[in-house]
Amino acid sequence: MLTYELSEKNKYYALYRAIRGDILSGNLKHGDKLPSKRGLAEHLGVSVITVQTAYEQLLAEGYIESEQRRGYFVAQVGEVKSASPVFAAEEEEQGKKYALDLCSGRAPARLFPFSVWAKLMRETLSEEGEHLLERVPCDGDYSLKTAIASYLYRFRGLTVDPRHVVIGAGAEYLYGVIVQLLGRDKPYAVENPAYGRVPHTYALNGAKCVFVPVDERGVNVEEVENSGACALHVSPSHQYPTGVVMPAANRSRLIGWAERTGAYIIEDDYDSEFRLFGKPLQTMAGLNGGRVIYLNTFSKTLAPSMRLGYMVLPPELYARYREIYQNSANVVPLFEQKALAKMLDGGYFERHVNRLKNHYRGVRAALLERIAELPVEKQVIETGGGLHITLHLPGFASDAAIKSAAEERGIKIKCLSDYLAGPCANAAEYARVAVVNYSSVEIADLNAVETGRGK
Amino acid sequence: MLTYELSEKNKYYALYRAIRGDILSGNLKHGDKLPSKRGLAEHLGVSVITVQTAYEQLLAEGYIESEQRRGYFVAQVGEVKSASPVFAAEEEEQGKKYALDLCSGRAPARLFPFSVWAKLMRETLSEEGEHLLERVPCDGDYSLKTAIASYLYRFRGLTVDPRHVVIGAGAEYLYGVIVQLLGRDKPYAVENPAYGRVPHTYALNGAKCVFVPVDERGVNVEEVENSGACALHVSPSHQYPTGVVMPAANRSRLIGWAERTGAYIIEDDYDSEFRLFGKPLQTMAGLNGGRVIYLNTFSKTLAPSMRLGYMVLPPELYARYREIYQNSANVVPLFEQKALAKMLDGGYFERHVNRLKNHYRGVRAALLERIAELPVEKQVIETGGGLHITLHLPGFASDAAIKSAAEERGIKIKCLSDYLAGPCANAAEYARVAVVNYSSVEIADLNAVETGRGK
Repeated sequence: MLTYELSEKNKYYALYRAIRGDILSGNLKHGDKLPSKRGLAEHLGVSVITVQTAYEQLLAEGYIESEQRRGYFVAQVGEVKSASPVFAAEEEEQGKKYALDLCSGRAPARLFPFSVWAKLMRETLSEEGEHLLERVPCDGDYSLKTAIASYLYRFRGLTVDPRHVVIGAGAEYLYGVIVQLLGRDKPYAVENPAYGRVPHTYALNGAKCVFVPVDERGVNVEEVENSGACALHVSPSHQYPTGVVMPAANRSRLIGWAERTGAYIIEDDYDSEFRLFGKPLQTMAGLNGGRVIYLNTFSKTLAPSMRLGYMVLPPELYARYREIYQNSANVVPLFEQKALAKMLDGGYFERHVNRLKNHYRGVRAALLERIAELPVEKQVIETGGGLHITLHLPGFASDAAIKSAAEERGIKIKCLSDYLAGPCANAAEYARVAVVNYSSVEIADLNAVETGRGK
Repeated sequence: MLTYELSEKNKYYALYRAIRGDILSGNLKHGDKLPSKRGLAEHLGVSVITVQTAYEQLLAEGYIESEQRRGYFVAQVGEVKSASPVFAAEEEEQGKKYALDLCSGRAPARLFPFSVWAKLMRETLSEEGEHLLERVPCDGDYSLKTAIASYLYRFRGLTVDPRHVVIGAGAEYLYGVIVQLLGRDKPYAVENPAYGRVPHTYALNGAKCVFVPVDERGVNVEEVENSGACALHVSPSHQYPTGVVMPAANRSRLIGWAERTGAYIIEDDYDSEFRLFGKPLQTMAGLNGGRVIYLNTFSKTLAPSMRLGYMVLPPELYARYREIYQNSANVVPLFEQKALAKMLDGGYFERHVNRLKNHYRGVRAALLERIAELPVEKQVIETGGGLHITLHLPGFASDAAIKSAAEERGIKIKCLSDYLAGPCANAAEYARVAVVNYSSVEIADLNAVETGRGK
């Protein structure tokens, strides 16, 4: 029987990490059967719920597979089945007014913690005084770099050297910096379909893009291996817009590709805070910090006006960054950096994210209820994470028909095909799937919409 | 006799503009003699000082020439003699401690108006409240765009449509945006010698640079005309580091080049606030707003930690900017934008700049006094503007000898040759000229340094 010392406060997470470690190190091999939940719970002296939650997490990340009535088995590297979708996006509102906007990636303004933020800003002003006028080093203020490193450790299980954190003015700004670091000689592999601003920003920065199709296991690894790219931009925890979670096997293969070719993985972890159930999925940066650039922002969690993001650079890229930018001040005002460091260190950010998650759990439940009422053939694809689900609607003639039916009811929506960013051989596979982004949705909005049944 | 209605409050400036208008429109032709100062003053009913100041401004900008004992004549387009140097720069301090740093471009921290800034920040927080969390349009907050347009009208005589002002996170960020707007197919012409971060930033953004030599009339116009460049990056009001002011004739020719070839002039007006005597020199954007991108920042005037700059785009480029960035929020936090708008609109910025100028007038006088004491052959080149002079030291064997003599006295200094950014045919012309940047200098620092004579 598997035996682990679960000393951590959060036992299910400790168990998940222990089993994952055994799978990665080869102690547990492909096809090995895991103990039954009840049996392992008794053996370790923990509740069945703890074991079940750990198994579900491993399942979601593709480390194990479940076979009905037979139990759980260790998955094979290269053949692991993916889990499912999780999300959020950021889309520009258009002029037209809709009763329900299922495209916007912005949270309702009322949810932002303005009073906390204002308090921290006032504190920062009084405490820092004239220090706020000092020039910020090119990679950002050290207090914020440390606060982010500590946050990543607590919430993403990532151990990073705070020195290697680089602060920037939002995700798109950081993509540009990455192009400056890695050059424009080789192309950048990007997911297809994709969040459109990713390839758009690479192109704006003079980089060529290679579009790699996303299937049910995430980005196609073979095509990445044949791409000749200097980097792969990827959101393994929940690809946008398909919602796919990349299985562990593919992650390892991609890391292997990066190691062999000297390429980098740009892990865009844009909405990991919004995994509504269970712990956030493990990062690729945690697998190999030497080949992975981990990137995230606070635009979604704090305020759309706050263009503040960060990336964790592998040591050799960090050295190159310092060399290139040594004479430049960081672009984010010191004031925002200090206030945000306070927000992270003081636990305010964590409390705020928890409030946001509660809100979205309610919205998600109401949304699924309304979808269930729809008098059409449908299949909901969602894993209980992120701010987005995909909805397969095979009864419609086309994506255009889906969107016009929605529009008649005052609903703004996009389909997977709207996110095709470049040439795509298997575009047909993406047909008739609506992308339902509930970032900006309030429960009242949902109740105001006609679904076509009753009422 | 020239007859003008000088209705403006500032009569010398009105006169300067009236004469300049006549020269540009051809009413006054090359070789035309201007009335004597006394004669014109009596004719217009203004003081001789008013006429003299106007003539000096026209002289500094190359619109007129003076011939000893004969008077003032209208200069010829293409042959006008340049005036002289004016300045400031921003250089990274190195680890080593010097008694006197003549390389740094940063003002002493004590001069920054922190109490005003803190007050405006507090006001902004209370007044704007949750509005501060709103997403900022891609080109910036309209209140700041308007405040900048109005500031440019009052202090630079520039009439711009506030809509065409684009806010960005400092000058280097904006150079990158320009490359995104104009593309990477054709090279960018940059001055040589130059402020090194200009070509550095273009190169980082994947643009090719063509280096155009700067002579005593500024950037060599013929070489620009033969460059095949899509844009010329230039500081016509005071080139860094040579200090040259580009004469009117060359400005017109460059505008003509831009009109003929569809190129743009990027007018980097980085330190126009620090013209210590007289009105700021006229801008190229004022000559033809359709071909000139006017660019400036607040990093020098407010705080090095404040990475906030702006550019005024010609209408067609503004339209392109909106098209490219419509889905992106502006990178500068709304909070800083609102507070800065208050600072400009409330007159605080103007008062602060006046205080800075008073400080620098004192430093400049003390600096010139100390230079006069130097027991070596020397020629000071400066026009009473900017935060920088150049000092020709023909008695030294080499630039290295100048720098090591300075270093022995605890003085950090650079020479013109240190600013050569690319291949330069006439590099020898730049030898033995020290670049004396007094941005960061306090009078006490000057008194602490040994010049070699007496004491």
